[in-house]
Amino acid sequence: MRFARFLHQGEAIYGLVDGEQIVPLRGSPFGSWHSAGVSLPLAGVQLLVPVVPPTFYAIGMNYPEHARHSAQQRGVAVALPTRPEPGYRANNALIAHGEAIVLPADARTVQFEGELVVVIGTRAKHVSEEQALSCVLGYTIGNDISERNWQKADRTFWRAKNCDTFKPMGPWIETAVDLDALRTTVRVNGRSEVEFATNTMLFGVARFIAEMTRYLTLHPGDVIWMGTEGASTDLHPGDTVEVEISGIGVLSNPVIADASPA
Amino acid sequence: MRFARFLHQGEAIYGLVDGEQIVPLRGSPFGSWHSAGVSLPLAGVQLLVPVVPPTFYAIGMNYPEHARHSAQQRGVAVALPTRPEPGYRANNALIAHGEAIVLPADARTVQFEGELVVVIGTRAKHVSEEQALSCVLGYTIGNDISERNWQKADRTFWRAKNCDTFKPMGPWIETAVDLDALRTTVRVNGRSEVEFATNTMLFGVARFIAEMTRYLTLHPGDVIWMGTEGASTDLHPGDTVEVEISGIGVLSNPVIADASPA
Repeated sequence: MRFARFLHQGEAIYGLVDGEQIVPLRGSPFGSWHSAGVSLPLAGVQLLVPVVPPTFYAIGMNYPEHARHSAQQRGVAVALPTRPEPGYRANNALIAHGEAIVLPADARTVQFEGELVVVIGTRAKHVSEEQALSCVLGYTIGNDISERNWQKADRTFWRAKNCDTFKPMGPWIETAVDLDALRTTVRVNGRSEVEFATNTMLFGVARFIAEMTRYLTLHPGDVIWMGTEGASTDLHPGDTVEVEISGIGVLSNPVIADASPA
Repeated sequence: MRFARFLHQGEAIYGLVDGEQIVPLRGSPFGSWHSAGVSLPLAGVQLLVPVVPPTFYAIGMNYPEHARHSAQQRGVAVALPTRPEPGYRANNALIAHGEAIVLPADARTVQFEGELVVVIGTRAKHVSEEQALSCVLGYTIGNDISERNWQKADRTFWRAKNCDTFKPMGPWIETAVDLDALRTTVRVNGRSEVEFATNTMLFGVARFIAEMTRYLTLHPGDVIWMGTEGASTDLHPGDTVEVEISGIGVLSNPVIADASPA
């Protein structure tokens, strides 16, 4: 099933995507729900971020080529992570499918990172790797927009990765996913820039959930961005960046320059 | 005014603290509210975390002695921050005044960090340092519980600072605060361990808000933990740790060992 969140009569509600139609729901995929109204053309609705997470987890280094490329760019030796360790991103930065990525006036080198996003469905603590996927509601797509100079120079990722609009997520949550069959493709202005088998992570979804829940409780709506592969390229005002994960969908966002006073 | 959040007839609501009494409210201090019911004895209600933030900001190094002590403990040269740069903590770790800090079985060196917490009241972007405090609703108290071995060894603070229960916050939000008059005292089992003038930060509240809102929107309910001063000491099961900030209140939490299977 595909659950999208959208604006309906001025209210943010969930809907069930059925081909080119969307059926408005009462309730939410994190609890009980039932259909509530006639289906609408999907193309006519304004999609919202599919969930606003209580905690926004993100894995920094989780693919071999990206780790090597990133180390090279920073002029340091490659050190692949030896254990699954999540980091964090910030809700202020979330935008939906179709919304604009706004580049601050002093941003210089801004790049995409296409990522699989795990959406937690049920509370989980102390779950084994074997049972870990049972707490997952489904999967969506994230684009971990990053300003590389700030990423190198700052103590934290507060503006390198968490400027307003730097975290596109969507377009919806797909619950029927075969992780091993997924392929991630990132396109800029229609041209493929990066493509990889999504599940070639250093540590997979189940391993991360098992390790994380040794110390923390995952809650319904929490998201875990699983990291990216390959060497990203630069984005400029006027570009459109798309992250496609086969079997989930396409997350597309235009890039514009900030027009507000600095 | 003092706004507390508490459990009332099975529901989480806000109340106005008036001496030893609390008046139940309808609405919230982040919007409109009015009193709704007879006042109750404060001692008889179960306080909750005063707000669950959309984004949970925390400053790592914001006092001179703490920065020096921390560098010494890690065996690195002291490098005081030259710019205000926020980090993040995670909502899963929040607990209220009175709730227990639970030490995981493999935690070794767990320490307190008493902190002033800024609670944002209104949306803010591109605000000047002069106008910055106008978006603040009030202040509460945080205890940034930290496991020092994980803090040294891990790539992120995911378990060093964000294990479940590692972020006590409360007891309430105080809106009438003179920042320069505040003193922070941390007591373990009634004995004072650390005491400092709260507003001797490297970068103050207004400076942080001005800098942060150059790149991000602060939202109602966001919190900014402002960092701690001095050299913290170890906590053990059976201890009670209190953070007092004069003019705000006392945040008190017992410490226990995790009894659940690892």
